[in-house]
Amino acid sequence: MASVSNALRVNDQQFSDAINTLKEFVSIPSVSNPNSEDYNLAHLQEAADFVKDRLVSLGFETRFSVVEEGTAPYVLAQKIVDATKPTILLYAHYDVQPVERDKWNTDPFVLTLQGERLYGRGASDDKAGVVSILTALNVYKDAKEELPVNVKILVEGEEEYGSANMRDLLVKEAAKLNAQALVILDGGNLDVATGTVENSTRGIVTFELRVDALEKPTHSGVGALVPDPCQALAGLIASLGNPREIPGFMDDCEEVDPSEVALLDQSSQTEASYAKEHGVKAGAILRGNSEESIYKRIVTEPSISVINMTAGKEGGGNSIQDYARCTFGVRLTPGQDPARIEEVIKKHIASQEVMYNLPYTLEKTGLSAKAWKGNINGPFTQAMLSGLKDSYGKIAVMPTGGALPLITDFEEFFPEIESIIAGVEDPDTSAHSHNESQDIGVLRKTTDALIAFLDKAKAIPLKA
Amino acid sequence: MASVSNALRVNDQQFSDAINTLKEFVSIPSVSNPNSEDYNLAHLQEAADFVKDRLVSLGFETRFSVVEEGTAPYVLAQKIVDATKPTILLYAHYDVQPVERDKWNTDPFVLTLQGERLYGRGASDDKAGVVSILTALNVYKDAKEELPVNVKILVEGEEEYGSANMRDLLVKEAAKLNAQALVILDGGNLDVATGTVENSTRGIVTFELRVDALEKPTHSGVGALVPDPCQALAGLIASLGNPREIPGFMDDCEEVDPSEVALLDQSSQTEASYAKEHGVKAGAILRGNSEESIYKRIVTEPSISVINMTAGKEGGGNSIQDYARCTFGVRLTPGQDPARIEEVIKKHIASQEVMYNLPYTLEKTGLSAKAWKGNINGPFTQAMLSGLKDSYGKIAVMPTGGALPLITDFEEFFPEIESIIAGVEDPDTSAHSHNESQDIGVLRKTTDALIAFLDKAKAIPLKA
Repeated sequence: MASVSNALRVNDQQFSDAINTLKEFVSIPSVSNPNSEDYNLAHLQEAADFVKDRLVSLGFETRFSVVEEGTAPYVLAQKIVDATKPTILLYAHYDVQPVERDKWNTDPFVLTLQGERLYGRGASDDKAGVVSILTALNVYKDAKEELPVNVKILVEGEEEYGSANMRDLLVKEAAKLNAQALVILDGGNLDVATGTVENSTRGIVTFELRVDALEKPTHSGVGALVPDPCQALAGLIASLGNPREIPGFMDDCEEVDPSEVALLDQSSQTEASYAKEHGVKAGAILRGNSEESIYKRIVTEPSISVINMTAGKEGGGNSIQDYARCTFGVRLTPGQDPARIEEVIKKHIASQEVMYNLPYTLEKTGLSAKAWKGNINGPFTQAMLSGLKDSYGKIAVMPTGGALPLITDFEEFFPEIESIIAGVEDPDTSAHSHNESQDIGVLRKTTDALIAFLDKAKAIPLKA
Repeated sequence: MASVSNALRVNDQQFSDAINTLKEFVSIPSVSNPNSEDYNLAHLQEAADFVKDRLVSLGFETRFSVVEEGTAPYVLAQKIVDATKPTILLYAHYDVQPVERDKWNTDPFVLTLQGERLYGRGASDDKAGVVSILTALNVYKDAKEELPVNVKILVEGEEEYGSANMRDLLVKEAAKLNAQALVILDGGNLDVATGTVENSTRGIVTFELRVDALEKPTHSGVGALVPDPCQALAGLIASLGNPREIPGFMDDCEEVDPSEVALLDQSSQTEASYAKEHGVKAGAILRGNSEESIYKRIVTEPSISVINMTAGKEGGGNSIQDYARCTFGVRLTPGQDPARIEEVIKKHIASQEVMYNLPYTLEKTGLSAKAWKGNINGPFTQAMLSGLKDSYGKIAVMPTGGALPLITDFEEFFPEIESIIAGVEDPDTSAHSHNESQDIGVLRKTTDALIAFLDKAKAIPLKA
């Protein structure tokens, strides 16, 4: 696909403005997980105001949509330039993951440049995604060029806590959200030099599992008789180690098309490079069948991981604890129905012999989503790959282990929509960990690619 | 044994003074666990000063002994009245367990009377033990009666963190600590109406177990490949559930003498009453052989309990954690050598297949002690039981699941010493949990028993 000769690009002043915008944006601690000590609806509102104000100044018709009182508002914006042209819905989110301050090398809410990277919570996921959209639109504005396509924008504030109200938003605002293509600016790149489209996401179901033993902690000297909830919880967690061994778990996994497997197998990732990229300790074994490529495993290998686990307190008293609890997430492969998997997991746990016959509770919590596979050959996806090629020189398609329930929700509401995931992350981003960061080259190149994409998309004919 | 006709008793004014003393004492947050946020050597020193000042005012030759710089001082005191009379060493401790403030109904460092109980951290364990000693000595002073025996006093500040320097103190101060009897005022009573001597303690070895998976937490979407340290830790913990199944674990357990079993079997505790006393959830099964009495199990049933367990943070990000850790305590039965058990546990963990071949560390930490059995027929123990009978009317002998390494240490240094555990706790004390409390009737009756004990002990002949 040929590149556009007169394409707009982000100039140095615009890029400097983009970084200042990101700095101001990161200083708002818009953590959306209500269990975090940083959670505050006022901060989410502040971040929403920040986005709305900038979209208004870019000439967009902009408003909030609140689905449920007391939750983070959606920012909806649009600029319809020509009804005969395609409409692109750009998506990003303004909320961020919680922080464990003592693990950060810098203040997580002060954007800090070190080398080629900007450190801060949300510096990449996904405030840089929002800033990329704002900057691309600003480049058109500065150039006094009308947008080449109709643009709708959806920026949410609940993505890091499961986008629980997205389906209700779709019901409420369906007319305002319909488009030919949905571009999700919340994805990652193979590396900082390769513009990347993600062609699949994992599904997810998350659970809270708790074992209760006592009314309150008691002196551990009574351990000859008094049961230990940690041991009982440990037994249940151990039974979840290999989902392939859980009866019924694999029943609705789809086979992946051989042509897609071939595409995935082109991945240059080796077990060693993947382990290094994720900081896996020396000698540890990666999960899944080592005969299969990394990317095939990301798409097709089911997995269960414990997200956090607590009983008592490190350095606390020498006591048997009253209860032990954990949160665990089940990642689903294409075809798997989250509701069915919920039942499979509940049935599996119910079939276990719980140590000391202790009572337990198992509840689905937070995020729940189906897996998704994109259409790499779709015209908008091809336009995005072309835009990425223009700015990066090198492109890739890769799957992600992350879940984006909004894609499957959107595709259910708008069966004709073409969904694309691109973004500003790279393997060193540490999106959900401490010391999250954004590569400044990636931010600039992805923004240029977005500008080029909008230009290329104008030529794609509307379906009859 | 006949009761003493003209025995001194605690009068109302003296008891009121005792409670005020306890109130002031509890207000010093003398937490000895250095991993607790409340730990502060200055508070331990303040509590030590508190004890020293009062012993000085009671006419005792009193001083601090510091074994290792930067650790809580020992308070040593003595009053030698007659070299031909027995010498009794009274022991208690001024340090307390950490607190989890959000679980307390009252301020843990403000002594609060509710009904018949005084609530506060250390209100019972073991500041009430110290106050009981001070009050008993004060009753003699108020009556202007010379003490009937020589009294030595040892009050430490590291009991709740394993008394790590006690052996070195014994080396340093052996001449000042030798006595015919060691009375440990840090025990419990069968119930608030029954004066009780504890005739055995459990041994203990405590471990810190940690599994490392990653350099830092990472997005849980990579779970198809990236190993989970929580699952690996859970597998190891699950392997520790029944110590009887750990190779070699039972090899050095002693058989308990049938006469002692008969004594223990007189316990009126049933599984149901014990479960209720410890707040065990309905339907849960107590550990050990249900054919055996509660007290026989406390003495002879080995057990492993997880004291705390952490990975990530409840409400934290949706990430696979970099590591998971726990502290677990192994309670030993008579005959078991802590050093041998340490090796047995290390060998057992080393023999496990660690999930994903993750690296782990296993370290002995904190408390380590042998089990102990007392001599119920010893003359000083009989004198204590007689004193308890005088004040309570009803007496009992019972084993404890707690560990008191100082007893076995003392008996190693002074093979002729007769060790006795009595005390101010009762089943509702919640010594190592939140809402710790002291029954005021027990405090008064135990103090009266201590006064009577000192009087009765004067008649016990010194060994040749």
